[in-house]
Amino acid sequence: MTLREAAEIIGGRVEPEYSDLEITGPASLDDAGSGDFSFYGSPKYLKSLRKCMATACLVPEGFDEDMGPAPVFVQSPAKAFALLLEHFAPDPVAYPPGVHPTAVLAENVQLAKDVHLGAHVVVESGARIGKGSVISAGCYIGHHVVIGEDCLIHPTVTILERSKIGDRVILHPSVVIGSDGFGYELRDGRQQKIPQTGIVEIGDDVEIGANTTVDRARFGRTRILNGTKIDNLVQIGHNVTIGENSILCAQVGISGSTKVGNSVTLAGKVGVNGHIEIGDGAIVSAMAGVTKSVPPKEILVGLPARPMREFKENFVLLRNINKLYERVKVLEDRLAGAGE
Amino acid sequence: MTLREAAEIIGGRVEPEYSDLEITGPASLDDAGSGDFSFYGSPKYLKSLRKCMATACLVPEGFDEDMGPAPVFVQSPAKAFALLLEHFAPDPVAYPPGVHPTAVLAENVQLAKDVHLGAHVVVESGARIGKGSVISAGCYIGHHVVIGEDCLIHPTVTILERSKIGDRVILHPSVVIGSDGFGYELRDGRQQKIPQTGIVEIGDDVEIGANTTVDRARFGRTRILNGTKIDNLVQIGHNVTIGENSILCAQVGISGSTKVGNSVTLAGKVGVNGHIEIGDGAIVSAMAGVTKSVPPKEILVGLPARPMREFKENFVLLRNINKLYERVKVLEDRLAGAGE
Amino acid sequence: MTLREAAEIIGGRVEPEYSDLEITGPASLDDAGSGDFSFYGSPKYLKSLRKCMATACLVPEGFDEDMGPAPVFVQSPAKAFALLLEHFAPDPVAYPPGVHPTAVLAENVQLAKDVHLGAHVVVESGARIGKGSVISAGCYIGHHVVIGEDCLIHPTVTILERSKIGDRVILHPSVVIGSDGFGYELRDGRQQKIPQTGIVEIGDDVEIGANTTVDRARFGRTRILNGTKIDNLVQIGHNVTIGENSILCAQVGISGSTKVGNSVTLAGKVGVNGHIEIGDGAIVSAMAGVTKSVPPKEILVGLPARPMREFKENFVLLRNINKLYERVKVLEDRLAGAGE
Repeated sequence: MTLREAAEIIGGRVEPEYSDLEITGPASLDDAGSGDFSFYGSPKYLKSLRKCMATACLVPEGFDEDMGPAPVFVQSPAKAFALLLEHFAPDPVAYPPGVHPTAVLAENVQLAKDVHLGAHVVVESGARIGKGSVISAGCYIGHHVVIGEDCLIHPTVTILERSKIGDRVILHPSVVIGSDGFGYELRDGRQQKIPQTGIVEIGDDVEIGANTTVDRARFGRTRILNGTKIDNLVQIGHNVTIGENSILCAQVGISGSTKVGNSVTLAGKVGVNGHIEIGDGAIVSAMAGVTKSVPPKEILVGLPARPMREFKENFVLLRNINKLYERVKVLEDRLAGAGE
Repeated sequence: MTLREAAEIIGGRVEPEYSDLEITGPASLDDAGSGDFSFYGSPKYLKSLRKCMATACLVPEGFDEDMGPAPVFVQSPAKAFALLLEHFAPDPVAYPPGVHPTAVLAENVQLAKDVHLGAHVVVESGARIGKGSVISAGCYIGHHVVIGEDCLIHPTVTILERSKIGDRVILHPSVVIGSDGFGYELRDGRQQKIPQTGIVEIGDDVEIGANTTVDRARFGRTRILNGTKIDNLVQIGHNVTIGENSILCAQVGISGSTKVGNSVTLAGKVGVNGHIEIGDGAIVSAMAGVTKSVPPKEILVGLPARPMREFKENFVLLRNINKLYERVKVLEDRLAGAGE
Repeated sequence: MTLREAAEIIGGRVEPEYSDLEITGPASLDDAGSGDFSFYGSPKYLKSLRKCMATACLVPEGFDEDMGPAPVFVQSPAKAFALLLEHFAPDPVAYPPGVHPTAVLAENVQLAKDVHLGAHVVVESGARIGKGSVISAGCYIGHHVVIGEDCLIHPTVTILERSKIGDRVILHPSVVIGSDGFGYELRDGRQQKIPQTGIVEIGDDVEIGANTTVDRARFGRTRILNGTKIDNLVQIGHNVTIGENSILCAQVGISGSTKVGNSVTLAGKVGVNGHIEIGDGAIVSAMAGVTKSVPPKEILVGLPARPMREFKENFVLLRNINKLYERVKVLEDRLAGAGE
């Protein structure tokens, strides 16, 4: 693609002397080489831009700094870059409808139209898979599992018995849905397993990252509602409910019976206690530990997690505690002097 | 089931006007609808009880609050509920004895009576599997692995060479047993792998959660003793020993060569340093980081972990540090005034 | 093996009365029984040595304490032990070249000489696997994946489309390479998926632990450079670069677009913010949270992570804050007395 063509796609402007240059793919400022195009979205990347080896770079209109790449002027470099990316994206993997001959299906499985079952997939008795859904190689679909339409289940995912998955759900490799909740009762000094007889129910448009685990309920349901996105290596305990359109970043852990609201953001490695509620729109920053219920829209930081403002004031006072020690020493010296 | 029948099972009392009501399944107070039964175990759920839409609710004898569901009076609602649950629990998945035709077994594998090998299971040379054990679909059982009797190995579990698993062990999906310990030696600026030639040995009645990893020993054994229960996404380093009847919650990590005692509780996301000992009965609270050895029965909190009492006192003083700043300011002002 | 033979192998010295004793395997001081040999490398293990039941123990020259095991005197017990270990190590698992009949290969797959494809492996269209590489049972190798020479890919690993793996790479069970990066854009209150069209590129001599996940780039590459070693259950976000010969311990998490330098050590459970840089040779201690860029060779501790020295001074002051409270009380009392 020439820069002229690129500029047309993104509604940008390229100087005539550069318009015949060829670009062959996207790259970040630091990574780019000849043939690549990149974008410059914020002054904090100016240093990277100056060393950038790309053939072209999308920059904001009116941008006027010396740089190696040919500039393409656009209103929003980030948005224009995203648009141009689509033209260079490789075709996504195609999963043609059909059942691979090595897949193992129980007799009373219901497959809707256009389902793809990959190699070595196992589908147990009573399972139902909706129209257009893809079950990639090596997945295990347990007894009486229900999967909706147009789902994309990546390789080696395990969905255990009676779990329910909505429409357009994406599960990344090695996700486990419906493992037993972690519940024991101490009897005579030994941990006795409490039966976990409930299910997992996942709404529409949910995406769950690689190696994440969602435990089935002790009874009733562990639920993840529509539109929520969960990153890799997250743990969702039994009987938890996650609301709609929430974001759970990598390595988050949520203990049993907790309710997370709608549009909540839990940053990386956040831990959440059991049997509490996190209100709609709350944001918990990375590595914080939430010990008690959180009102809607609260922003929380730290371990134990506290409201951002309270945390910050306290944090600054603690960080400068050496100065308070010094001030007390001065007072002591003065009083010692005064007392003599 | 009618409430009369339910009351009989759990030794409870139901008022005659309600005794013909039908219940069809269990649910939590918040989740319950028509046909469900729930239970009320603690005053902190009174608000939920008042809004509860269940047909019936197990309540303590003498309980006398207005509520929608029909009350069933019992001595311990939680215990009665657990008992009633069993009558409504779906049949557990049945794993009939036999080897699925797609399973791949080496020649010199020993299978005891009534073993179930699911679809696409691989069992390598020299492995032995005990009476009544279930190896579910897609599992990999490595060379010379020994698995005891009546184990339940869920789908896609990997057990690498020479690992030993006791009786009645439950391994949830995608558990990895016997991956190499993480050991390198820096030579000429490069990390050289230290061979990990030991094994993993797991006792009887151990349960291990989904996607948890247990590394083999550098030499000798990484051990998990009888009755210990481990949650999802936990990391057990090489040469670690975990005692009997301990509880390790989700996302715990234990570094190499550490010894965890009997009846220890490690709450969610706890990290434990290498080469230390955690005494019998110790409890480490969620997200704490244990940096040095811990005496028996100690209760630990924080990062680095400290005894609960010490932590709490210190925590309160730090949390209110703004008041100490104010008190110092008052002193300074007085002395400044006095000095003038 | 007799102690005489062992002493010859490691260049050690054994007293004549013990030289015919037989040793059959290695064990730690605490674990050892009759027939085992162990080693004593540091005075902190003296207590263990005194109770040790091994037949023999490697000790430093000139060591002169009472002990049960027969001493073998060597210059460095740890090194001598490692050397002797090799003589007792079981043969590693052999993976003969060849394609298992249950493996499923697309038509245009390129396999170099001496490749091993285990049972139930799936290799998709366009994939290339280099000479001598082992793809163990149940692995999924996606479309156009390139794997170098002499790699060891353990069971149930998933490598998604277009990922590139270098030579002599070891991937432990259930590793996921090339899952989608975690990127969404909020539009009309709903999270819209941002396409993740880049790849993962892994250099030579990299080792990645069980159940670790490495996300593909939004565009361009997520990179792990030569010689870096990564432990179990680690999360590497999209567009991250990890330099050469770095060490990432278990349960580390690195957010998107961050650059980790060469020879960096991230201890267990460290979290690293997105879009920052960690300089060459930096060391981050366990459970620390790195919020901003780190200069080379810095040693960091805590949450948020700070330079070790600054952290330690502050930590001691905070830990003893009760004494500062007492000192302020004394001053207040004196001034109250003075004011009367």
